[in-house]
Amino acid sequence: MSFNSFGHMFRVTTFGESHGPAIGCVVDGCPPRIALTEADIQPYLDRRRPGQSRFTTQRQEPDMVRILSGVFIDAASGRQVTTGTPIALVIDNVDQRSKDYADIKDKYRPGHADYTYDVKYGLRDYRGGGRQSARETAMRVAAGAIARKIVPGLNVRGALIQMGPHRIDRARWDWAEVGRNPFFCPDAERAAFFADYLDGVRKAGSAVGAVIEIVADGVPPGLGAPIYGKLDGDLAAALMGINAVKGVEIGAGFNAAALSGEENADEMRMGNDGKPAFLSNNAGGILGGISTGQPVVVRFAVKPTSSILTPRRTVDRYGNDSEISTKGRHDPCVGIRAVPIGEAMMACVIADHFLRQRGQVGEAPAWPFAKPAP
Amino acid sequence: MSFNSFGHMFRVTTFGESHGPAIGCVVDGCPPRIALTEADIQPYLDRRRPGQSRFTTQRQEPDMVRILSGVFIDAASGRQVTTGTPIALVIDNVDQRSKDYADIKDKYRPGHADYTYDVKYGLRDYRGGGRQSARETAMRVAAGAIARKIVPGLNVRGALIQMGPHRIDRARWDWAEVGRNPFFCPDAERAAFFADYLDGVRKAGSAVGAVIEIVADGVPPGLGAPIYGKLDGDLAAALMGINAVKGVEIGAGFNAAALSGEENADEMRMGNDGKPAFLSNNAGGILGGISTGQPVVVRFAVKPTSSILTPRRTVDRYGNDSEISTKGRHDPCVGIRAVPIGEAMMACVIADHFLRQRGQVGEAPAWPFAKPAP
Amino acid sequence: MSFNSFGHMFRVTTFGESHGPAIGCVVDGCPPRIALTEADIQPYLDRRRPGQSRFTTQRQEPDMVRILSGVFIDAASGRQVTTGTPIALVIDNVDQRSKDYADIKDKYRPGHADYTYDVKYGLRDYRGGGRQSARETAMRVAAGAIARKIVPGLNVRGALIQMGPHRIDRARWDWAEVGRNPFFCPDAERAAFFADYLDGVRKAGSAVGAVIEIVADGVPPGLGAPIYGKLDGDLAAALMGINAVKGVEIGAGFNAAALSGEENADEMRMGNDGKPAFLSNNAGGILGGISTGQPVVVRFAVKPTSSILTPRRTVDRYGNDSEISTKGRHDPCVGIRAVPIGEAMMACVIADHFLRQRGQVGEAPAWPFAKPAP
Amino acid sequence: MSFNSFGHMFRVTTFGESHGPAIGCVVDGCPPRIALTEADIQPYLDRRRPGQSRFTTQRQEPDMVRILSGVFIDAASGRQVTTGTPIALVIDNVDQRSKDYADIKDKYRPGHADYTYDVKYGLRDYRGGGRQSARETAMRVAAGAIARKIVPGLNVRGALIQMGPHRIDRARWDWAEVGRNPFFCPDAERAAFFADYLDGVRKAGSAVGAVIEIVADGVPPGLGAPIYGKLDGDLAAALMGINAVKGVEIGAGFNAAALSGEENADEMRMGNDGKPAFLSNNAGGILGGISTGQPVVVRFAVKPTSSILTPRRTVDRYGNDSEISTKGRHDPCVGIRAVPIGEAMMACVIADHFLRQRGQVGEAPAWPFAKPAP
Repeated sequence: MSFNSFGHMFRVTTFGESHGPAIGCVVDGCPPRIALTEADIQPYLDRRRPGQSRFTTQRQEPDMVRILSGVFIDAASGRQVTTGTPIALVIDNVDQRSKDYADIKDKYRPGHADYTYDVKYGLRDYRGGGRQSARETAMRVAAGAIARKIVPGLNVRGALIQMGPHRIDRARWDWAEVGRNPFFCPDAERAAFFADYLDGVRKAGSAVGAVIEIVADGVPPGLGAPIYGKLDGDLAAALMGINAVKGVEIGAGFNAAALSGEENADEMRMGNDGKPAFLSNNAGGILGGISTGQPVVVRFAVKPTSSILTPRRTVDRYGNDSEISTKGRHDPCVGIRAVPIGEAMMACVIADHFLRQRGQVGEAPAWPFAKPAP
Repeated sequence: MSFNSFGHMFRVTTFGESHGPAIGCVVDGCPPRIALTEADIQPYLDRRRPGQSRFTTQRQEPDMVRILSGVFIDAASGRQVTTGTPIALVIDNVDQRSKDYADIKDKYRPGHADYTYDVKYGLRDYRGGGRQSARETAMRVAAGAIARKIVPGLNVRGALIQMGPHRIDRARWDWAEVGRNPFFCPDAERAAFFADYLDGVRKAGSAVGAVIEIVADGVPPGLGAPIYGKLDGDLAAALMGINAVKGVEIGAGFNAAALSGEENADEMRMGNDGKPAFLSNNAGGILGGISTGQPVVVRFAVKPTSSILTPRRTVDRYGNDSEISTKGRHDPCVGIRAVPIGEAMMACVIADHFLRQRGQVGEAPAWPFAKPAP
Repeated sequence: MSFNSFGHMFRVTTFGESHGPAIGCVVDGCPPRIALTEADIQPYLDRRRPGQSRFTTQRQEPDMVRILSGVFIDAASGRQVTTGTPIALVIDNVDQRSKDYADIKDKYRPGHADYTYDVKYGLRDYRGGGRQSARETAMRVAAGAIARKIVPGLNVRGALIQMGPHRIDRARWDWAEVGRNPFFCPDAERAAFFADYLDGVRKAGSAVGAVIEIVADGVPPGLGAPIYGKLDGDLAAALMGINAVKGVEIGAGFNAAALSGEENADEMRMGNDGKPAFLSNNAGGILGGISTGQPVVVRFAVKPTSSILTPRRTVDRYGNDSEISTKGRHDPCVGIRAVPIGEAMMACVIADHFLRQRGQVGEAPAWPFAKPAP
Repeated sequence: MSFNSFGHMFRVTTFGESHGPAIGCVVDGCPPRIALTEADIQPYLDRRRPGQSRFTTQRQEPDMVRILSGVFIDAASGRQVTTGTPIALVIDNVDQRSKDYADIKDKYRPGHADYTYDVKYGLRDYRGGGRQSARETAMRVAAGAIARKIVPGLNVRGALIQMGPHRIDRARWDWAEVGRNPFFCPDAERAAFFADYLDGVRKAGSAVGAVIEIVADGVPPGLGAPIYGKLDGDLAAALMGINAVKGVEIGAGFNAAALSGEENADEMRMGNDGKPAFLSNNAGGILGGISTGQPVVVRFAVKPTSSILTPRRTVDRYGNDSEISTKGRHDPCVGIRAVPIGEAMMACVIADHFLRQRGQVGEAPAWPFAKPAP
C-alpha cells in the first residue's frame, strides 16, 4: 500500500508538515557500503531551497539535513558508508513565524488542496499548507541525492524549457547555462527574457506555470518491467505526484500523436561499441516500458501557483460563500524549483528499477547473443 | 512489488502472451456481493476487440471471457455475485495462425520492445509480440468492467479527440456520437473526416497516433492520498502503462503551464445541493492528489504503431545491421482501441482509491462542518 | 496489499475454489532462462495428491497442471525456459461430483471457516469448502516447484515427526525412509506404528493432528532482512498460513524458552572451507532474521481435521442451534499431506529472499574480510 | 516490499540503531480524527523501558517519545487529533556511553546477529547491537499505542506464562496481578518464585528464556483474509519478527497436534446476544485465517539472551578462532520486556486488518441472515 511511500526495492517514505517540528524521510532498501554523509545530500537541497533569488519565495528555510540512521564507519575504508539498514533523514522546520492564519484556516484557497483535505479527512493542518506544502519536496530531493549514488554512471539533469507561454529555443540548449541563471534555463537568451518577464508577474502578484525537462544519461538497458512495473509508468507516477504537476510526457510525448509511423519509430544500427545505436530518440529511452540504453527523456508541466494577490471567489468549511487573496511570500513560478525535484524523482525511480532488475535477472545477459549452431 | 500487478485494495494481476494458450488476470480485493457474470464483462471486451471495422487489425479474436473463480450464487437474491475471493478471468487464444516468424524472431522491429525484452531477459517470445502484445490489454478491459461496479454512481467514458495532427472541435462534442462511429469520436464531422484520412494511412501501409480523453463522472470527493498515493499519480502510471502511450495530462494539462494564476485556479461557490460548485475545472477534478467531486478528466497520447510497410533500418539479436518491414494485419491507428482500455484503467484506479479511502477513513466526514461554538 | 498473494520479488497469487472450474496461480518475478516444463512441477503435485493410500481422502484429483504463460523455447539451448514474464498455472477441477450440499450450505461445521467466511463476506461458496479448501494448496506446491529451481544448491525436505501424541525417535531419522511410507515419516519403526494407529482413527471416523519438520539445506548466508523482512518472520507467515496450522517454530523453538543462555547460543569455529562452522543449530539457521548458512529448520503443528463423523453442536447461518456431522471422503490426518506443502512454502520464501538479497546487495561480500592496515 | 515496514493499511516503518542519534518510526494510513498526544504513547513505552527493576538491564533509557507530524488541533473538539497524514515518532538516544567496543567490533557473539549482518552487508554498526538491538522494539510499542485506538472495544493484554522451564499455574491466572510484579506474570505465587529464580540466573551471569501469551478481546469477527492475508499468518510474522522469538502458536497451538478431531473443533450455540457462542476456543479466535469474534490468543517463545558472562567459542570477522564473553548491562530474561512488545504487535496487526476489512467489505454483513423465501 502506498500512501506516503514510493519505490519498491529503493523505497522512500516521507513525513511532516510545513509548520510541524520537522519534515523527514526514511530510505529503505539502499545497498550497503555506499559512501554517504550529509555533505552528499546538502548541495541538492541547496539548489531547491527558496529565497536564493528574487524569483522564489523569500521564506528562509536553511533546510539543513541530518542523517539519523543507516550509516556507519567502514573499517576497511575508514569512510562513513550506508549499512543497508534504513536511512532516516530529518530537516527541522525553523522558519515557522507565528503568523495569523485567521483568513485561511476556514476558507479554501482555489487551486490548493484545502477543500480536498478537509472533505477527505474532516480536518487539515492549514499552517503553511501543512502536508500539501511544497516543503515536503525537500525530502524527495534528499532521497534523490542517495539514489544518484546507486547506479554506476547515472547522470540526471533537468532544465526549465518553458515559462508561461514562452518556450526556449532548443538550438541554444547549453547544459552549462543551467547553473548560471536562477531559472535552471539552458537557453541564456531566454533566461534573460525570463528575468524581466517574471519580475512583471511577481510585481503584479500573479503567477505563471512552466515546463521542465529531465534527462537521464547512463541508464543501463533492461530497466523496467512488463506490464505494471514499466519504467515509464513509474516515472509518470513519480513526476505527476510532484505538487502542481498536471502533465507528463516521455520522448516525443504528445507530439507523437501527430507523427507518422515512419517518423516515430527510432531506427537502429550497430554502434562501434558493440551496442545498438538508435538513430533518433522519439521513444525517450523507453520501449515497452523497458529502458533502451538511450537517454531517458521526460517533460512535465507545472501549473501556476494558486497563491495570488487578486481576490478569488471561494467557500469556507462551514458552507458559506466567501473571497480570498493570498498575501505573503510565494513563488511567482513554482516550476523553477521543480527542476531539482524532478531530477530527484527520476533518480529514485531509476535506482529502484536498477535494484529490481538486479534482483530478478541478476547479471545482465551478454548482448549481442552468440548465434546458435544451425 | 509490482511487475505484473496494479492497484492496492483492488488489485489486478495479468498474465499471458499473444500466442500462448491463453491470457488472463486475477482480480483480488473485490468487495463481495456484487452481481457478476461474464455478460457484465463481455460487452466491454467487444468494444475493444479488433476486426470490427476496416480501421482496426483484421485479426479475429473472439475474446470470449470465462470466470474461473470468485463468484457464487447468493442465496438471498438467487443471483451470481462476487464472493470476496480472487476473481480469475481467462480468454483462450484462438487465432494463432501458424505463421512464419523467420523475419522477426531475430530482428528487432524499431519502435517495438523487441530489443528491450531481449537485452533485459536474454530471450523473448516473439510470436505476435508475446507479452508486449496489445492483446494483454483485453484483461485490463475485463478488470475494468468489474471495477465499474464498485463505486456507486461512477460513469467512466472515453473519446478519441485527435488523430494524427487533426483535432476534433470540442464545440461539437456529443457523447452519443462516440458509439456511432468506429473511432469513438465525439465529433461527427471529424469522424467522417477521420474515415477518409485513415483509409489513406492504411492503404499507404503507414500508421498514425492519437489523443484520447477519458472523463469520470460521479467520483466522490476525497479519493486519493498524499503524497505518493495521489489519485493523479496513480492515474498517470495506469495510463502511461498502456502500450504505446507517451504522454498523460490531467485537467488543463500541459496548457496549465501557459495560464496565469488567476486563470488557472478554479473558483468556488456553494451549490444548491449543499456542496461546493467549482466555476471551472482546470484541475481536472483533482487537487493535491485528491478528488474534488468534479469530473476527473485525463488525456493521453498514443504513438503511431511501429508496424509499417516501409522498410526500416534495424539490427538483429546477433549484432548485425539489417532491415525490416512489417507485413500482416495491424492497426493503422492503435489509438482507437485505446479508448476502452483507458476507460478501464481509469475505472480500476478509482475503484482502488474508493476502497482505500473507505478503509482508512471509513464513513466520509459530513461536509460542510458545523461551526464550533466560539 | 496481500489478500491472495505472497512473496515480494518472487510473488505468487493463487485463485480458485474447490468446486469451481479450476484453481490456479500466477508466479511473477521469476528469473528468466530457467528450464521449466510441466514435468518439473507435476511430481511435486503427485506427492501432495490425495487418494494415494488409504490414509488420505479417497477423492480422485488427478491435478494435472498446465502452464499457460511465461515460458518459451530458448534459441540457444533449444529448451523451454522461463521468459521473466508471469507464469500462470492452472489445474482443472474434475472430481466435482454432484453432491448434496443441503446439510452444510446453511450449517457451520465447527473447526471449519464456514462461519468466518459468512460473517466476513455475507456469503460463501460451500461446495467442498470453496476457497478454504485444502485444494488451494496444490498451487502452493506448484509454485514451490518453480521456486526450488531458483537458488543454486538449495534442497528443501520435509518429514512428519509427530502424529497425534506420538512422536518419532529422532535417533532413527532416515531421510530415505520418508519416501517409503505413506506418512512422509523418517522413522521406519514409527511409520509402521502410524499405519495401525491411523487405521483406528479412520475407522472411528475421527481425526488427529501432526507435527511436520522442514529442513532447507544449501541456503546461502545473508538472506533475510531486518526488521520486518526477516527470514523467520516470513517463514512463520508462510507456514502459519497453511490450512489447519496452529503453531510454527524455528530451530530450538518453544524449547528455547527452557534453555540457559549457555546452552542456547551456538558456538562457532572456523571450518576447513574458510567459512564459520557452528557447533550446534539451536538458531535453526537464522540469527537476527538473517540466514547463517546452516540448515534452516522449521516445525509446524497441524490440527486434526474438523470433518468427523461424530455429530457436533453448531448453529446455522439463520441463527438457529443445530447439529452436524461430516460424512464423505476426508483425511483422517491432514498433516500428512502438509509435508509437501510446507516444503513448497519454505522454497518460495527462500527464493524470494534470494532475489531480494541479490537486488539490494548484489554480489555477496567476500567473507572473511581482509584486516585493514593498522 | 518489506524490509523495515509492516502492515498494509496501517503501515509502520521503523529506523534507527541503538547508538545512533535517534530511533523512530513512521505510522502511515492511520485514520484521521483520533485523539493523540505523546501522553497516549508514553505509558506503553514506560512499561517496556529497561532499568525499572533489578531483573532488567540497568541501562537508563528515558525513551521520551516526540510526535513530529500527523497531528493537529481539531477545531470542533479543541483536541489534538490525527490528521490522516503520516505520524512520525522519534526517541533520541541519550545513554550512549562512550564504551570500549574493542572486544565485539571484530568478534561475533554467538546467538547474536553479528555474523549474519556482516556476511549480508559487509559491515555492521556494532555499537550496542546497532540495528539488531532490542532498542528498536520501543518503536513497535509506540506504534502499538496508536493502533490500540483504532479498533473500538479492542483490549490487548499480555502475560509471561513461563520462565526457563517453569510454567505458571493457569488456574491462578489473574490479569490484575500482571501489573503488580516485575515479570508481567498473572500468577502471583509463580511471580514470587520467579524473583528468586531470576536472581540466581542474574548473579550467575547467565540468562533464561520465556513464553509469553497475548490475548486480544473485542476483535470483531471477519478480520483476516484468505489466503495469504490471513490474520494468523500476519500475527505469526509479527511475533516471530520480535528479537529472540523462536516460536509462535495460536489457540491450542502445538498441543492441537495431539488432540482428536472431536476435542479440537470448537462447538457453537446461539448466544443470548444473537451472536454465535463458541463452547471452547482451541482455534484461538481464528478459523480459516479470519477472526471468529472470540478472544484471539497467541503465545510465543523467547530464547535466552545470548549475552552471558561465560566465555564462548567464536570466530572474528577476519576468519580467526576466538573467544568472547559479554560484560555489561544485560537482561537475564529478555522475555519479560517482550510482553508489551507482543501486545503492540498484536494491536498493530489487528488494526491493519480492521482497516483492510472496512476497505474491502465496508459495513459488515448483518448476521444472522434472513432466511430466503422458499
